Amino acid sequence: MVQTGPITENAVVIVFGASGDLAKKSTFPALYTLWEEGLLPEKTRIIGYARSKLSEEKLDEQLFWKIRDDAEQGHRKEDPEKMKTFEGLVKYVQGAYDKDEAFEGLEKEIQIIEKDVFSGQKSNRISYLALPPSSFAQVSAMIKKHNYNPNQINRLVIEKPFGKDTEDCKKMMDSIAKDWEEEEVYRIDHYLGEEMIREIYHLRFANSFVEPLLSNKHVEAVSVVMKETFGAEGRGGYFDEFGMIRDVGQNHLLQAIAIMMMDAPTSLADDSLRSNKVNLLQAIPPVDPANLVLGQYAGAESGPREDGTGKAYLEDETVPDGSKTATFAQWAMQVDNERWKGVPVLVKCGKALDKGLMEMTFHLRPPPSNIFDVPKHSNSLVIRMNPEPAVFFKANMLKPGCRGTETTEEEIKWTVPGRKVAGDKLAYEVVLANIFKGDQSLFVREDEVIAAWEIFTPLLQHIEAPDGPAPTLYPYGSAGPKEQYEMEENFGLMSTRGS
Amino acid sequence: MVQTGPITENAVVIVFGASGDLAKKSTFPALYTLWEEGLLPEKTRIIGYARSKLSEEKLDEQLFWKIRDDAEQGHRKEDPEKMKTFEGLVKYVQGAYDKDEAFEGLEKEIQIIEKDVFSGQKSNRISYLALPPSSFAQVSAMIKKHNYNPNQINRLVIEKPFGKDTEDCKKMMDSIAKDWEEEEVYRIDHYLGEEMIREIYHLRFANSFVEPLLSNKHVEAVSVVMKETFGAEGRGGYFDEFGMIRDVGQNHLLQAIAIMMMDAPTSLADDSLRSNKVNLLQAIPPVDPANLVLGQYAGAESGPREDGTGKAYLEDETVPDGSKTATFAQWAMQVDNERWKGVPVLVKCGKALDKGLMEMTFHLRPPPSNIFDVPKHSNSLVIRMNPEPAVFFKANMLKPGCRGTETTEEEIKWTVPGRKVAGDKLAYEVVLANIFKGDQSLFVREDEVIAAWEIFTPLLQHIEAPDGPAPTLYPYGSAGPKEQYEMEENFGLMSTRGS
Repeated sequence: MVQTGPITENAVVIVFGASGDLAKKSTFPALYTLWEEGLLPEKTRIIGYARSKLSEEKLDEQLFWKIRDDAEQGHRKEDPEKMKTFEGLVKYVQGAYDKDEAFEGLEKEIQIIEKDVFSGQKSNRISYLALPPSSFAQVSAMIKKHNYNPNQINRLVIEKPFGKDTEDCKKMMDSIAKDWEEEEVYRIDHYLGEEMIREIYHLRFANSFVEPLLSNKHVEAVSVVMKETFGAEGRGGYFDEFGMIRDVGQNHLLQAIAIMMMDAPTSLADDSLRSNKVNLLQAIPPVDPANLVLGQYAGAESGPREDGTGKAYLEDETVPDGSKTATFAQWAMQVDNERWKGVPVLVKCGKALDKGLMEMTFHLRPPPSNIFDVPKHSNSLVIRMNPEPAVFFKANMLKPGCRGTETTEEEIKWTVPGRKVAGDKLAYEVVLANIFKGDQSLFVREDEVIAAWEIFTPLLQHIEAPDGPAPTLYPYGSAGPKEQYEMEENFGLMSTRGS
Repeated sequence: MVQTGPITENAVVIVFGASGDLAKKSTFPALYTLWEEGLLPEKTRIIGYARSKLSEEKLDEQLFWKIRDDAEQGHRKEDPEKMKTFEGLVKYVQGAYDKDEAFEGLEKEIQIIEKDVFSGQKSNRISYLALPPSSFAQVSAMIKKHNYNPNQINRLVIEKPFGKDTEDCKKMMDSIAKDWEEEEVYRIDHYLGEEMIREIYHLRFANSFVEPLLSNKHVEAVSVVMKETFGAEGRGGYFDEFGMIRDVGQNHLLQAIAIMMMDAPTSLADDSLRSNKVNLLQAIPPVDPANLVLGQYAGAESGPREDGTGKAYLEDETVPDGSKTATFAQWAMQVDNERWKGVPVLVKCGKALDKGLMEMTFHLRPPPSNIFDVPKHSNSLVIRMNPEPAVFFKANMLKPGCRGTETTEEEIKWTVPGRKVAGDKLAYEVVLANIFKGDQSLFVREDEVIAAWEIFTPLLQHIEAPDGPAPTLYPYGSAGPKEQYEMEENFGLMSTRGS
């Protein structure tokens, strides 16, 4: 039996890949905020671990740059005194990822902390792998071998991508499961920490006016749209290997769908919630390649822009020549269970599009009576994360000031100042705080990741076969390939053509 | 078979009681607006009829004062040219209400219009009785005898109060029904023309997210609250004879309840809609006197105010000494049908209270799961007419910016600039326009009025018996008698104590 529950004291957080982007941009800033607000366990120490030899100065720049930059940009309070104290809690350890000696060296550093700071008490350890997935197996094995504290709490934190398909994922999961219990592994999908995703639990289960609507009795179709205005600029190399479906479809968007469409858990405690998500995912058959639109952005119609954007995906230096990777994808899913049978779920996501948008829409069936002649799909429940966080009903109301019964389309809406948009640092803080709490509800369970891959693996194999479909080119900054509208119409959805 | 359908030409509107308050404040201004906007039938002429001998000047002041005042106050466009043209369409006829000769004289005037203006064609006639109900029987008989145009459209318009109880109402209805077909009688309840009441049809039947919630499956209780800040000042004599229940409870509020709780009609055409309202009303048993709170306002705690308000009801000169008439009433109703059995409907209305408010609330059952610990009745659907017209869900949402699952009570709300508050002149315009159209959907059918009385007659007899209950005194400008809170609690509603 491994130790579970909250870590309340003597915590050592080891951030592997401390000099990398993820650590710098997300992990350290979130740790700083939690520490500043007194939300870290008593006597927490942080170790940054990486291969690079870093001078004191360089180190400081690497690890804490984003925290200082946030303060300069006004996103957090500037407090040099506090910053200095925080820096005092962080130690940098240089070492390789494949050498026993290196992890032994790390262990010595941890033991020094246990002796000097924790008065000789054993530490609880969080190993945060801000590393490429290819190193997960090796590093997690090394940690288990050299840095595992039996009888104390040990946590291993990893972040997507969890493999490239079902088989690949299973291999990764198995290699970790050799050394670590499922309860010890925290698989981050930071979307689960996003405020509007967490809002869904309240919307559905702290209220009684939403849940009765959420079934094939009242819902005709579900659509999820995620549009980004920027392309793969600068990270084309990484992106090209994964493509749109792996980058957001198999994880973020599918998680949002699972949370909105799963049956009510008995509580938000880890396993009830995650089991219901798994149930939902397992009810979704693999995506039929017949229901697929792929796109790749070409250059902007008005040519490249001054800021360097607007160039075609293939013109990005980090993108391999002739890449067929999709920067736009649309597909349809079905949920074969009692509750959702017959309700298509259409997902659309893409880069370098006309606007930034992330929303889920439950298109309600038309009212059963013919009393009013209402436009198709003029009734829906929308949960929007971007550009403004909002929950609203699209409704047909009486036209204000009219003397007859004219109808107008309106939004019955909830927006709140202070609500965070997607991508805000709050999401990482929430996720990290839950690792200390030992609350797995916002992390992805092993069977959940595998169930998610099973939905997409046949589709990805189809796409990546030598005779796989080529993506349709669309101009940078446009609404994407025209084929998307046809597919919307085929599934009985209102076409977004021209919107 | 009487003539039905729209009046499209040669209309004569005879406003009986032309020198009275109702005609001046509501009828003439509404007729003016409809005429100005081209919504009256071609060749419409208006006759003001009353007992008073009026000089040309006095007449003008009496009939058109409100129209001019509205323009001065900026509530409508000032247009002396148009005003003059409109005045040219109106003729004043002086006459008694009980003399055949007087109605013969009126008929001569109408025939002059038919000859001179309608090129000898017969007129369609709307007789609008802006008169005390005591004269309805006599005047409607006189009109039938002297001013009825067979083969043309003839309409008789009356406004509440329609009697004082079931028997009294039946007598009135019968006396009218001797001469007039039901299709010819238009019983105004101007609430039915109010924008937020008409909005209810859209909310329920042009959308599919409200109707599934409206039953005892999801609704725990219904409450209707109408609060006025002013007392009976100046009209105490009229009010004292009727009291709060007759003044608004048996008509306006019950109509709002019927529209929200009736089954869906097959169309908004007169009889489907009204039959469903009757069905709903007939399912409501007479109010049990055990579920009753009565109040009467005493003087304001800080004494009478400079504007003359703040005095006790009994200090009003127009109120009979020692009157026991209630200026505040609260009662409970049940709806004994499949859909609503077990859901109490609590109604509260009163004068000289702490604020102006008119809203209906469907208190939803708590969510079935215990995932969140939500406050009682924190979930509801509210339709508000005053002080701001709005439709909203009271909801439990995730507290913005929090890292856990804290709940905050929020409103998912729809308010629209341009939406009219209760009491706006739009309501009368809508109602009058429908008389010309021959659309009875916003008028009260005979069986509907009687069904409404049957709900209240035993209660009123109980109240008005010699040993009937005395109202509890409450200070002018307060929230009303304390007993209301006890009753709210008894019916499982959130107490509004202190709100």
